[in-house]
Amino acid sequence: MMDKNYWITETPIEPNDCIKKVARNEAGAVNTFIGTVREFTKDKRTLYLEYQAYVPMAEKKLAQIGEEIEQKWGDANTAIVHRIGRLEIADIAVVIAVSTPHRADAFEASRYAIERIKEIVPIWKKEHWEDGTKWIGDQKENKSYDKKIPSEEEMRDD
Amino acid sequence: MMDKNYWITETPIEPNDCIKKVARNEAGAVNTFIGTVREFTKDKRTLYLEYQAYVPMAEKKLAQIGEEIEQKWGDANTAIVHRIGRLEIADIAVVIAVSTPHRADAFEASRYAIERIKEIVPIWKKEHWEDGTKWIGDQKENKSYDKKIPSEEEMRDD
Repeated sequence: MMDKNYWITETPIEPNDCIKKVARNEAGAVNTFIGTVREFTKDKRTLYLEYQAYVPMAEKKLAQIGEEIEQKWGDANTAIVHRIGRLEIADIAVVIAVSTPHRADAFEASRYAIERIKEIVPIWKKEHWEDGTKWIGDQKENKSYDKKIPSEEEMRDD
Repeated sequence: MMDKNYWITETPIEPNDCIKKVARNEAGAVNTFIGTVREFTKDKRTLYLEYQAYVPMAEKKLAQIGEEIEQKWGDANTAIVHRIGRLEIADIAVVIAVSTPHRADAFEASRYAIERIKEIVPIWKKEHWEDGTKWIGDQKENKSYDKKIPSEEEMRDD
């Protein structure tokens, strides 16, 4: 468990590590989103995933999402952790926790966070399918980097 | 941690107890809602809360909410635990966890669950304010039972 609220890790994630960071007397609600490795996408079976990230930039972008949430929802505390490296089926890839005084804000802000992670955070997914193929894309799953992870230089343009 | 997915407890809640019940290979998303005891409501300070429930009926109604979610969202697994008795500030009163293949469903179903809990589950809240007053109401906070918890007989009409 890190001292900071936004971090990338190579070890298994405990949801409570995020939840504890945002719990506080002023909050009546905590919404937590947990993204896990799903075995099947339609009929296609995933064996395992690999996530790669440019870590300093990824943590900076996660923190930016937390700032955006504070601007939009006021009294919200956010913590986000994303795992990288090889992940097996059902492993936790990402946990978001947002605490707010009232529950509607916690739901909305948590939803906002996962969408923004997929939009702006430089983390790439390499999918290992049962039939042996690989697919590498960004988090929105709509762009292929042609089996090449962008260089750190390219990522700095993000 | 109980064998069932819907339960009332008098002991502190660990969010992971709910999360583990719904995690599975088919799910890519788990949404968790945690309701905690908030210290301030506007300028009024809460010292502590007491929750009371007609336990068999409360657990039955929680299970009903899980069934409603399955009907509405299809491939969703749900677990809900609500604590009763005396709760201090920041204690967890309720945890909902919903797993689904895709994230939008997990957010929607979890939100649905907390609204339904407040609508149909026979759990009453006694609020102990700093100024010595008490207030007893149902979970929607819009009905007072006139400082009297309904009898089990009255609750059976629910």
